Amino acid sequence: MKVKTELPEVFDDFGAARKQGFLKVKSLKDKGQRVVGVYCTFMPEELVLASGAVQISLCSTSEETIPAAEEDLPRNLCPLIKASYGFAKTDKCPYFYFSDLVVGETTCDGKKKMYEYMSDLKPLYLMQLPHMRTTEQSKELWYRELVAFKNKLEDFFDVTITEDQIRDAIHLKNRERLAKKHFYELGQLNPPALSGAEIFKVMYGSQYKFDKEENIQSLEDATTAVKERYANGEHLESKPRILITGSPMGGVTEKVIHAVEENGGVVVGYENCTVAKATERLVAEDEPDVYQSLVDKYLNIGCACLSQNKPRLQLISDMIDKYQVDGVIDMVLQNCIPFSVESHRIKDFVNDEKQKPYMYLETDYSEADIEQINTRVTAFLEMLEG
Amino acid sequence: MKVKTELPEVFDDFGAARKQGFLKVKSLKDKGQRVVGVYCTFMPEELVLASGAVQISLCSTSEETIPAAEEDLPRNLCPLIKASYGFAKTDKCPYFYFSDLVVGETTCDGKKKMYEYMSDLKPLYLMQLPHMRTTEQSKELWYRELVAFKNKLEDFFDVTITEDQIRDAIHLKNRERLAKKHFYELGQLNPPALSGAEIFKVMYGSQYKFDKEENIQSLEDATTAVKERYANGEHLESKPRILITGSPMGGVTEKVIHAVEENGGVVVGYENCTVAKATERLVAEDEPDVYQSLVDKYLNIGCACLSQNKPRLQLISDMIDKYQVDGVIDMVLQNCIPFSVESHRIKDFVNDEKQKPYMYLETDYSEADIEQINTRVTAFLEMLEG
Repeated sequence: MKVKTELPEVFDDFGAARKQGFLKVKSLKDKGQRVVGVYCTFMPEELVLASGAVQISLCSTSEETIPAAEEDLPRNLCPLIKASYGFAKTDKCPYFYFSDLVVGETTCDGKKKMYEYMSDLKPLYLMQLPHMRTTEQSKELWYRELVAFKNKLEDFFDVTITEDQIRDAIHLKNRERLAKKHFYELGQLNPPALSGAEIFKVMYGSQYKFDKEENIQSLEDATTAVKERYANGEHLESKPRILITGSPMGGVTEKVIHAVEENGGVVVGYENCTVAKATERLVAEDEPDVYQSLVDKYLNIGCACLSQNKPRLQLISDMIDKYQVDGVIDMVLQNCIPFSVESHRIKDFVNDEKQKPYMYLETDYSEADIEQINTRVTAFLEMLEG
Repeated sequence: MKVKTELPEVFDDFGAARKQGFLKVKSLKDKGQRVVGVYCTFMPEELVLASGAVQISLCSTSEETIPAAEEDLPRNLCPLIKASYGFAKTDKCPYFYFSDLVVGETTCDGKKKMYEYMSDLKPLYLMQLPHMRTTEQSKELWYRELVAFKNKLEDFFDVTITEDQIRDAIHLKNRERLAKKHFYELGQLNPPALSGAEIFKVMYGSQYKFDKEENIQSLEDATTAVKERYANGEHLESKPRILITGSPMGGVTEKVIHAVEENGGVVVGYENCTVAKATERLVAEDEPDVYQSLVDKYLNIGCACLSQNKPRLQLISDMIDKYQVDGVIDMVLQNCIPFSVESHRIKDFVNDEKQKPYMYLETDYSEADIEQINTRVTAFLEMLEG
């Protein structure tokens, strides 16, 4: 066995993507490119692509702008929501600055209400995500919301969006989903081919590669490079294998990944927004009604913001099996009510149905709890090995 | 001027209503009466009445069962939600016990997710309240939810609900709303005819008088009694006049009313669930489509759980004028995200548009903060007088 020491070069590319993204989006704007800024993986990027615009994830993962947000929002609100609003208010997010239109969604109370203030700062369109996913009323609502959003994009950008354009966008996004999936599924290899920090860096960075074809190619190159190295016997040593689930992760909350990997574990999978949750299932390409296929895809994203979140249990179950997971860490942002209330069900499911250890880990965007997280994660990992 | 010393007898009746309600509901059940338990004023009681059942507000206002709830729910969740679940789990709410069907609603994240656990304890039907009120999609969703709920009641109780029965129920509920309104509008009298604690006692108690005709009669008697006394010159002395707005109030949170009235103020109006918020507007009786008239009524309840809550601003504005309000207290339950995020807008509106002082007061179901509340409220009242 050769222990891997150096990352394939293609990885650096993803690490730099977010930073370079700022320059790239400016250069795109200079060429007249339309930009739609969003905060959530429920947003149907297919429609934005079909309108000829690019969709960009707006800044929400650092504590830098939280004090400014707390002038208008309560302190005991989820840090992601405060950061999102703070970046908008202080105009410190270049992506927000360059967005022609910001599209919010009614995923949770905090975001829904925060958008009321954000809409004072920028043209903001709010999509109404249903509270439920299985009833006919919910499907009908989301269908109508998708059509209304298409109409909004047509009006706002003065374009016509054809069904063929939507089909092309569905196909392109599916190809990107598959390229992402092939990459993050490298986490299934045992012993591990790469660290969880590396998987996350690539997945997070790929959000900031706005040219889809380039992104797909880079992801495929990265997957190929890792596979080749693995075939040559290069891999990490075996360690307790952790699945991370819970609230959206990125930026400062990557401290949880580091806590696992600096204390004797390896993160093999992420059942969360940045990685598997919204990527795993494709949009059906053979469905005659494109909106119906988008409804089926998006309403089945296993987010805690929807009532009776069976798709999350299903994905956690599959990932525990396929990634040979030893333990599950449920990272929940402070005051993230949907995920914190749901955690009790997740714990029972992981413990009872999957017979695996589970740890609930609540955190925010400060670095003050890093030592505490290290201590708890170390104890959890020792328990897994013991 | 005669200062009022004694309450009309009819008031005692309301004070005892909740306690007697327990016996009354048992006796109703013994006679085969169907009972639907609810937690929210968005619930369309007209449909329940039309089905021949009575609708009862379930227990949610004491801290007694919160420790039991915290075994399953996060601690930093709104006390109303924890109490609701705790009463259900410990079976300490006779109304819950006697309910044939419990109907929840997706007003906020905490309740929506809590109902997932509650549905393990009891047949629970969840109504999907939209996130928004003005879009066509929202109105259509609520329309369909009302029809689906009617169908559910028909199936569950094996009855047929006719349009005429719904019309009769609309008329009856409107008469009750008017009787309530005539009573709580006594708060507009200046100098005050009665205390805010008395107004609240009657309004809260009237929820537990299940015979609508009897309730209407008692409310009218109470109104008449107060008016007669007032005509005879009996009234309270003039004091700073407070409007209470915010989260649902009742039980232990009445401490806020007492803090006002024991420290030199009088609560003249309540822009909240128990009093004006859901009662103020009637259901149109001349609309050909009964469901449409229910949509128009219920979606215009000014709850913070809906995006862009203009009806709340409108009602606060009207009440400040009509009740000659000197200051507004926004009582928000801890971790009640919709109301806490909205408070910033309410403060600006009250201060800037209405030129009135505003106080934000966050509290929970403990009595630990009573001294702190007294201190803050006293300072607020002194400022109003100063």
